[in-house]
Amino acid sequence: MSGGSREPGRSVTSKVLAILGAFDAAHPQLTLTELAGRSGLPLSTAHRLVGELEEWQALSRTPDGRLRVGLRLWELGQLAPHRLRELAHPWLQELFGSTGENVHLAVRDGLEVLYVDKVYGRRAVPIVSRIGGRLPMHPTGVGKALLAYEPDWFVTSYLARKLERPTPHTITEPGRLARELAAVRSQGHALTYEEMTLGSCSAAAPILVDGRPVAALGVVVSSRRSRELPRLVEPLLSAAAGIARGL
Amino acid sequence: MSGGSREPGRSVTSKVLAILGAFDAAHPQLTLTELAGRSGLPLSTAHRLVGELEEWQALSRTPDGRLRVGLRLWELGQLAPHRLRELAHPWLQELFGSTGENVHLAVRDGLEVLYVDKVYGRRAVPIVSRIGGRLPMHPTGVGKALLAYEPDWFVTSYLARKLERPTPHTITEPGRLARELAAVRSQGHALTYEEMTLGSCSAAAPILVDGRPVAALGVVVSSRRSRELPRLVEPLLSAAAGIARGL
Repeated sequence: MSGGSREPGRSVTSKVLAILGAFDAAHPQLTLTELAGRSGLPLSTAHRLVGELEEWQALSRTPDGRLRVGLRLWELGQLAPHRLRELAHPWLQELFGSTGENVHLAVRDGLEVLYVDKVYGRRAVPIVSRIGGRLPMHPTGVGKALLAYEPDWFVTSYLARKLERPTPHTITEPGRLARELAAVRSQGHALTYEEMTLGSCSAAAPILVDGRPVAALGVVVSSRRSRELPRLVEPLLSAAAGIARGL
Repeated sequence: MSGGSREPGRSVTSKVLAILGAFDAAHPQLTLTELAGRSGLPLSTAHRLVGELEEWQALSRTPDGRLRVGLRLWELGQLAPHRLRELAHPWLQELFGSTGENVHLAVRDGLEVLYVDKVYGRRAVPIVSRIGGRLPMHPTGVGKALLAYEPDWFVTSYLARKLERPTPHTITEPGRLARELAAVRSQGHALTYEEMTLGSCSAAAPILVDGRPVAALGVVVSSRRSRELPRLVEPLLSAAAGIARGL
């Protein structure tokens, strides 16, 4: 029952969590062997735990037998604190309606932005953000909008690392990035041009509650239409302010 | 490590899942004592397992110390198979844009409908559906639209139970309900008038792939405007057909 006889230092709970944690955006489907490898468990242990997780619908199978996160876990995840999302959604909807552009909402988690909602239509430009997905902060509009309002010590330690450079336009030079964050603070919004994805530009605004950046709202447009970004700033700021008032 | 010494017949995995399963829409936040009670575990066992789950961010705490589902579980749940949702979302968006009404998407799970997406604005009528929420099938538009296309044996066993009656308008008499499902099949859509919630009416259409109902799309309007339901049927059917083509 304990499953821990061969690895006395590791609790069964930690093994179950290692199995769940083996799935991520880059690995949404895994064979049992891959799953055992990624979770650091012997195949026999992984097999037994997966059986229990499948029975509970925490995991399910693809038609070709690979394992993936099950509907029950999705359903459970929907209970996570989403007052922000519930409250913000109508504003995202309205911003999408008035601009016709992709709109998304993100929070900071660690050194990344985590996208918690997204509104997109059939004609809008494809964007890399995915609900539940993460991206680095410095190349994204929402990331810059959040980073600009973090305390100095946080920004300093963020900039001290080697920063990812997803496109040749990504600003990674610490001095230049620091000046840009200062500009974001003084203007109240961030603009990015092909820093995360070639072909896409964005405008983003922080959602400030008592001066703290609790989330950021962003609009993404095709870089062919980058000249339209400035006129999106006003509706963006008004939606961000509306969400902040609600919180 | 095993945590199973006092309950040798129950695996640690099942205890972890019992803790997660203690949370539902009616119980999104629990004290440790409530959690132990709902999961059928001794307080000491619950305490220890909760500690590990909290460390992993599967659970988190409210400001007043109650336990709730954590952001990491939400993030993990977003990896669950949502090809349907990804594909359908722009159509929901378009239907919302052209009608200005609440729009939602549901699948059947067991004897209930599970809402997988919802698009709503600031001015639309409040509706009881919640992403990740469940409702019975017979009083909801999406439920009727799905039920009407299930095989006879399924419908017979559904109708054989005592059916919930959330409002005085809910149709629960088996003969009348069966006639109504036949009408849904012949018309290709369902209409409900205050059967789930007083003050709300809905129109819904099944999303049929090879004749099987894989999901249903619904529009909800205030019952004061119930006369407008029929004109929503055409855009509803066209969006449902668009989603079905994509699948």
